[in-house]
Amino acid sequence: MGETKTAAGRLEPKTKRGLRTRDALLRAAEKCFGEKGFHASSVSDITDEAGMAIGTFYLYFTDKLEIFRAVVDQIQTELRQHLRRSDNDDRLVRERHGLADFLAFARARPRMFRILQESYVVDPDIYFSYFESIAASYARQLKAAQAGKQIADANPDIQAWCLIAISNFLGMRYSHPSKRRANIGVVVDTAADFIAHGLSPNGRAHVQGQSGAGRMPLVSTSQARQRRV
Amino acid sequence: MGETKTAAGRLEPKTKRGLRTRDALLRAAEKCFGEKGFHASSVSDITDEAGMAIGTFYLYFTDKLEIFRAVVDQIQTELRQHLRRSDNDDRLVRERHGLADFLAFARARPRMFRILQESYVVDPDIYFSYFESIAASYARQLKAAQAGKQIADANPDIQAWCLIAISNFLGMRYSHPSKRRANIGVVVDTAADFIAHGLSPNGRAHVQGQSGAGRMPLVSTSQARQRRV
Repeated sequence: MGETKTAAGRLEPKTKRGLRTRDALLRAAEKCFGEKGFHASSVSDITDEAGMAIGTFYLYFTDKLEIFRAVVDQIQTELRQHLRRSDNDDRLVRERHGLADFLAFARARPRMFRILQESYVVDPDIYFSYFESIAASYARQLKAAQAGKQIADANPDIQAWCLIAISNFLGMRYSHPSKRRANIGVVVDTAADFIAHGLSPNGRAHVQGQSGAGRMPLVSTSQARQRRV
Repeated sequence: MGETKTAAGRLEPKTKRGLRTRDALLRAAEKCFGEKGFHASSVSDITDEAGMAIGTFYLYFTDKLEIFRAVVDQIQTELRQHLRRSDNDDRLVRERHGLADFLAFARARPRMFRILQESYVVDPDIYFSYFESIAASYARQLKAAQAGKQIADANPDIQAWCLIAISNFLGMRYSHPSKRRANIGVVVDTAADFIAHGLSPNGRAHVQGQSGAGRMPLVSTSQARQRRV
């Protein structure tokens, strides 16, 4: 059959067709969970949405909770693929690109936030695993950037959580229908400037006549100043 | 009776006893929602928890959704009272104190996060109203600090969202049982340094021999460097 059983007895698809079926179930589940929520969505809602018989579901997933976890994993996989495009050598430039890419991703699929937020309620471990996993690889990159003197030398795990917090919160806010028309360029510029230099008024004011790319604001102060969203 | 009816016909308590009863219902609801979630908690669970007859509930609240909103409002009120203690003249010092106070508040009542996260699912407007309301007053304070040249001149609304993101995410993480034993001092120092100076390696390295309190890191670089949580 080209497929193997998992410990729980479900099919781990190996064939293209099996993968396509599993993927179609994940898409349908993401739509149901994202629109109606975990509790209001049943397995038969998911198979109806996917246009499949309910029996097919149980070939791939044990229950609704298992496909919910798989949907969250899928969001993370796709997010990582999307963010891999940000590949500048300079970490501060990468942060800016990464934030812009994340906000574009978030606005293209605002349902992800409802699913993530609900995961905290369904089982906090799903929520924390998602963010801890992202934070762990983020922290490795920050540690490398510290070694290269591109960013400040501090606990990279906490730096990573601060950065994830900012992109996630701004992603939630600017994918909300009331903010669909916001000027995302201004959001990215302001937040990227905050990420690079914090709230401190210095470091920017003294840019002229000082060397060091890290001191350069990613947008000029006059640009960032009080721009409206 | 010393009480007036709201538009919905509920009692707006004016007497001490009425306020105490409403408050007891809010406490009971916070416990139920925080432990079992919105969907699994019924009005009778709440009145059982409060040791009251179910009829009493309907004197004060229209339904479960109304008391859920009131619980979120109550969290905000108590958070504001708690944070009002941070009252230093310097904005960067206040940010540091505010973060430390918020993390203490969060760790003392970790249920708040489950309730807030679930509010996004129950009705996103509850979630966004909570954060937009906090952000609006935060932004006013930041604007005043900008006018006083204490912090960088940029869109204060976006600065406020970045700051709220950091405290909320760190609050969620460090009130989780797996992180109860983390060294919160290191978390506060690292995050406060990020808030003041961002990721940029400069502004800290050049501290010596330069004037300007805003340039001073809130913890020395050697302190912040790679400290373990």
